[in-house]
Amino acid sequence: MAAALDELRTRLAEVSDLSRAAGVLGWDQRVTMPPRGTESRAEQLSTIGRIAHERFTDDEIGRLLDAAEPEVESLPYDSDGRSLVRVTRRDWEKARRVPSELRAEMTLQAARGHHAWVEARRTSDFASFLPYLRTNVELKRRYVECFEWSDSPYTPLLDDYEPGMVTSEVQEVFATLRPALTELVAAAPEVDASFLSGDFAPEAQRAFAERILATMGFEEGSWRLDPTAHPFCTSFSNRDVRLTTRYQPDDLESIWSTLHEAGHGLYAHGIADSLLRSPLGAAPSLGVNESQSRTWENLVGRSRSFWEHWYEPLQETFPRLRDVDLDRFVRAINRAEPGLIRVDADETTYSLHIILRFELEQEIVEGTVALEDLPEIWSARMREFLGIDVPDDARGVLQDVHWSGGGIGYFPTYALGNVISLQIWDVVRQALPDLDAQLEAGDLEPLSGWLRDNLYSLGRKLTPKETIERLTGSPTIDPAPYLAYLGDKVASLESRSPSGIRQEPSATA
Amino acid sequence: MAAALDELRTRLAEVSDLSRAAGVLGWDQRVTMPPRGTESRAEQLSTIGRIAHERFTDDEIGRLLDAAEPEVESLPYDSDGRSLVRVTRRDWEKARRVPSELRAEMTLQAARGHHAWVEARRTSDFASFLPYLRTNVELKRRYVECFEWSDSPYTPLLDDYEPGMVTSEVQEVFATLRPALTELVAAAPEVDASFLSGDFAPEAQRAFAERILATMGFEEGSWRLDPTAHPFCTSFSNRDVRLTTRYQPDDLESIWSTLHEAGHGLYAHGIADSLLRSPLGAAPSLGVNESQSRTWENLVGRSRSFWEHWYEPLQETFPRLRDVDLDRFVRAINRAEPGLIRVDADETTYSLHIILRFELEQEIVEGTVALEDLPEIWSARMREFLGIDVPDDARGVLQDVHWSGGGIGYFPTYALGNVISLQIWDVVRQALPDLDAQLEAGDLEPLSGWLRDNLYSLGRKLTPKETIERLTGSPTIDPAPYLAYLGDKVASLESRSPSGIRQEPSATA
Repeated sequence: MAAALDELRTRLAEVSDLSRAAGVLGWDQRVTMPPRGTESRAEQLSTIGRIAHERFTDDEIGRLLDAAEPEVESLPYDSDGRSLVRVTRRDWEKARRVPSELRAEMTLQAARGHHAWVEARRTSDFASFLPYLRTNVELKRRYVECFEWSDSPYTPLLDDYEPGMVTSEVQEVFATLRPALTELVAAAPEVDASFLSGDFAPEAQRAFAERILATMGFEEGSWRLDPTAHPFCTSFSNRDVRLTTRYQPDDLESIWSTLHEAGHGLYAHGIADSLLRSPLGAAPSLGVNESQSRTWENLVGRSRSFWEHWYEPLQETFPRLRDVDLDRFVRAINRAEPGLIRVDADETTYSLHIILRFELEQEIVEGTVALEDLPEIWSARMREFLGIDVPDDARGVLQDVHWSGGGIGYFPTYALGNVISLQIWDVVRQALPDLDAQLEAGDLEPLSGWLRDNLYSLGRKLTPKETIERLTGSPTIDPAPYLAYLGDKVASLESRSPSGIRQEPSATA
Repeated sequence: MAAALDELRTRLAEVSDLSRAAGVLGWDQRVTMPPRGTESRAEQLSTIGRIAHERFTDDEIGRLLDAAEPEVESLPYDSDGRSLVRVTRRDWEKARRVPSELRAEMTLQAARGHHAWVEARRTSDFASFLPYLRTNVELKRRYVECFEWSDSPYTPLLDDYEPGMVTSEVQEVFATLRPALTELVAAAPEVDASFLSGDFAPEAQRAFAERILATMGFEEGSWRLDPTAHPFCTSFSNRDVRLTTRYQPDDLESIWSTLHEAGHGLYAHGIADSLLRSPLGAAPSLGVNESQSRTWENLVGRSRSFWEHWYEPLQETFPRLRDVDLDRFVRAINRAEPGLIRVDADETTYSLHIILRFELEQEIVEGTVALEDLPEIWSARMREFLGIDVPDDARGVLQDVHWSGGGIGYFPTYALGNVISLQIWDVVRQALPDLDAQLEAGDLEPLSGWLRDNLYSLGRKLTPKETIERLTGSPTIDPAPYLAYLGDKVASLESRSPSGIRQEPSATA
């Protein structure tokens, strides 16, 4: 009946197993590995990556695709079988363009670059990282040469993370965002958030984060949360989801960092069983995936409704918040205030950090910037975009992990995620008219259930644009709902005092 | 020059990377994996194991071995190159005898058997485990049929863990051990160890274990220690060594369990860099490996010299021991007392647990025992060997994990390790005349350095017997030093009071 499709599935399952195994090795490297294991781990990852790539790009996969296409042509467009053949064909043709040797070298140098970056950031020493960055950029240029593009050599890199998206489309979205965001940041009043700095025991933060996680719709025994230097989420099946977060002893950011990773985690957890061990067992793009981390971090986790339920437990956990009422707390966690660090940025300023990186990345790939000048350019643009001075590389160009592992083209997906999150949220609010009341009651399962059934379970069967169209009725990435949301947010904050002097907490209460 | 050898190394490095990757997945499964990840993890491990096996047993490896043999024939016998070709040839020919289908079935049934055993042990229900055991034993018989043997069908199984050893050699060693041990156990006086039971905070145990580990000669940043239900050690390179242990809140066994695993860990850590990513990057056999875990657990970790240094820190960590002097403590940790559980057994009774299992395993493989009778036979022999009654299957025939995964032939290596540990220890004492003083000063590095240079660094270049011969001058497994050591130990314990009544602590102090 479907002999070719079955054989294709078997071969793709092997490739998926190898990729998931590489994922385990990567998680281990970041969460548990002793530091001196680095070199061997890089070799192991390189070997697994090479074998997975060889097996996926094998001629036989092409023959099986040819044979499976007639087997699935009468099935619905979004059926598992027809989607598998269509998406695998696209992935296979793309992957075949990259020589195994180049791919192995990229994996190896990414691991080395990551190691060098950790040390360089620790000592705030961009010069020590520069040779590794240069190597990784050179490899990316060789990678780009494997593809055809129309608008920019950046497009093949972007396409790895946001399939089907071209550079000019992102430029267009960001051209709308940048002035609007700059205006919102300028209009945003100062808000007292001093009570969010202080002594917050990490162990209590962990317990609080796990309490929230337990209500989000994860099946018991299918996830875990670990501390890392840089929070991330990965999964080795839809029932083995790994969240990581960072507990700072002097703030509460771990709450939103955990909610963010839990958004990714719910996506991975919601993938339909029938799509596991196949190229369909993931989100359609980083942007769509990110839309959900931002949904849980921000649209849920900074909403007044959510905190109507959770603020009392938080006050019980941290009695120092007893004197801060819910209004002040909600204003503080929604404030807009330029800062140095992307991952600490608020919703309003966040996308400006991304636009800065997106522009730099294009220049790096196009070769219109000298890599040794990056720290200086970074500082100049931070002044231009956000009006702040960069004191050192650690808090400047070295702050992000991405470039260390050759992850160029990744950053814009964060801002696209912000934009997409609001497009989908508008749909969710229509579908769940009682959402506010549910959040106020601490009941997150209707929301996570709806998103699972209507989005997460689809995996990669549809392209990002098809996925967005299925939910919203239009394939366009439209920044309007996002800007409207931020506009409302900024308007809801207290107005800046005329003198520009920070108000005393008692006056803002 | 050595083109075939180089190509062989490259291919073997890939196989090694895959095996190490499987090791990471296994460690993760036992230490960190959420329980619902089990099914996907089994698929991932099965895929990696199959690919590693396919690549290792490939015809091309045989052709490369043929071509490499003349390249290395003029090199010294124990050179890296000549050893690699010799050992790989042996491994390859052995691995080729087993059909992939049988191997896959064994892996699958081992996983099922393990799962069934966990539940059977929990409910102490041998009958529920019996069908799985039967399947695994049948598969082992089919496995044995892939090989030739002279003395017993048990030999091919033993050879998997103790290469080159035949059943009759083990029988001979155990024929000497059994009566001598029985006599020693009967002669051993009762010793008060009541102070070793009580309230010992796991977190303090962990900190104490890590303090000792930091002095044993591990390079910093090359190991870690985690808690697990069943202690084990694995490594993903000589600089990524994973120790696990178990902290019981009511005893101090974690100290010796940690030292035991650290012995395995030092072995893995000491493998020469040039042997990594090859079949030579491991200990020559489980017995030789175990000799070192027993060395650190017992010969070091139960010696008076070691505790001359560490007992004060232990008393500071656990003030309840302040009233117990060093003499009483050392006697208590060296006591001989028959018990039900192998892993809790003291040095004197331990090998009797093993001999019982070794005899049963031969009967199982030879088919001279009905599997359904195992619980009854187990109980009868426990009375005969150790004079104690078995209350239930959980503390009897179901106590060990090994048979559940088809691991028949593994047990004797534990007792062989005990025997070998003393053969090597005699050599160590001659080479390091100041050893006692070094241990008393808390200086473990001369010992671990000597063992690394003279044993661990050799990896699998030599067979177990060649390795023992290199150190001791004779390839024979000789139980005499082990029995002499135990004889001295038992003689050093206080004599049993004539009435047989346990003496009060005050009287033994």
